[in-house]
Amino acid sequence: MPKRVDHEARRTEIAEALWRIAGTRGLDGVSLREVAAEADISLGRLQHYFRTKDEMLLFALRHINSLAERRIRERLGAPAAGPDRGEDQDRGEDQDPDPEQGPGPSPRVVLRACLAGMLPLDEKSRVGALVGAAYFARAVHDERLCEEAREGIPRLAEFFAALLRGAQERGELAAGRALDPYTEAMLLISLVDGLTTYTLLGVQTGEEALARLDAHLERLFADAG
Amino acid sequence: MPKRVDHEARRTEIAEALWRIAGTRGLDGVSLREVAAEADISLGRLQHYFRTKDEMLLFALRHINSLAERRIRERLGAPAAGPDRGEDQDRGEDQDPDPEQGPGPSPRVVLRACLAGMLPLDEKSRVGALVGAAYFARAVHDERLCEEAREGIPRLAEFFAALLRGAQERGELAAGRALDPYTEAMLLISLVDGLTTYTLLGVQTGEEALARLDAHLERLFADAG
Repeated sequence: MPKRVDHEARRTEIAEALWRIAGTRGLDGVSLREVAAEADISLGRLQHYFRTKDEMLLFALRHINSLAERRIRERLGAPAAGPDRGEDQDRGEDQDPDPEQGPGPSPRVVLRACLAGMLPLDEKSRVGALVGAAYFARAVHDERLCEEAREGIPRLAEFFAALLRGAQERGELAAGRALDPYTEAMLLISLVDGLTTYTLLGVQTGEEALARLDAHLERLFADAG
Repeated sequence: MPKRVDHEARRTEIAEALWRIAGTRGLDGVSLREVAAEADISLGRLQHYFRTKDEMLLFALRHINSLAERRIRERLGAPAAGPDRGEDQDRGEDQDPDPEQGPGPSPRVVLRACLAGMLPLDEKSRVGALVGAAYFARAVHDERLCEEAREGIPRLAEFFAALLRGAQERGELAAGRALDPYTEAMLLISLVDGLTTYTLLGVQTGEEALARLDAHLERLFADAG
């Protein structure tokens, strides 16, 4: 048991070294040797934990996403509700959150917290977005790396769609045409992805990105009843 | 004059070699030497045209964007209207298109053609999106590369905002809350960016991406009057 913890701790330390590189000069062309140097361990030791750069990148991505998820849950004060963007070893409960239950925050509040939490508004989420950008650049040429998104994104979309259905049932969604929750969920995820891109590129500030996200949510939830 | 043409032709050939690499194994860690080999010229000759990988990447990105722009214009049969995502040496006229003028296609038709043209729906636009992804991965760590997006994206957003204002004046935009054209334009660009990401990753098909874009446009233009 302690051995397992040590193993995870060491993998996390290596992932953190990867994040530091992602947050500064980027991961383009970075070798395992350079990550080992940043983590202050030998290449052989690093390869004991990660055989390839992609394996390491996936671990780093999942871990940074699970930290982001935890931050969002804490902010909401609602441990059961949060996005599910990757594997999280210490989860296990609430695989299918029910946004209707209990006196917790409303679906809109949860949705907004999740989406805002995905934007690069502070240093932690900025590094997370940069790791995500490095993942994207490699995954478009690697079927196995794509799997992560092909499993994770529909799961996240389902989670958002459930929140939207909850809001719809409470009469909080914009009326007019009937909205398809899954379509709206994928639009929201795509929107946040694009807003993240243009924030990282300095086309807009984080505040502008958030204001634009809010404009979209306002339309989605406006004129209810 | 012929010399200038040769120069451009050679630069274009090199850019096309870069696209082929971007379309297959990707540009991560690719050297100038490898691009020279793909273009079937010597490294020295390539460096005569491009001193750095970034210089070459920018040229390739601008050129592929100008080709995409031309395809969209042709599809619309309206040479004056089209997105402006980068420098295009053989343009010069119509820097500020007036979406209100003439009997051409409606603002909605132009907007939809531009946005759909930005999605990776065929091989050419897929390669364009992959070059864009390679640009993004490098630009987040390079202030000078960011400049391209910091100039190009607001210009594209202004173009879309002008189309949206045109539609608004024609009473074609959704009523309800007053929409801010520039905000809506940035939302559209971000949306297409994210839809492109998830299409390249195989999370959704190109058809699904287009259907989701159309759902958003439908809402934007619905209930007019």
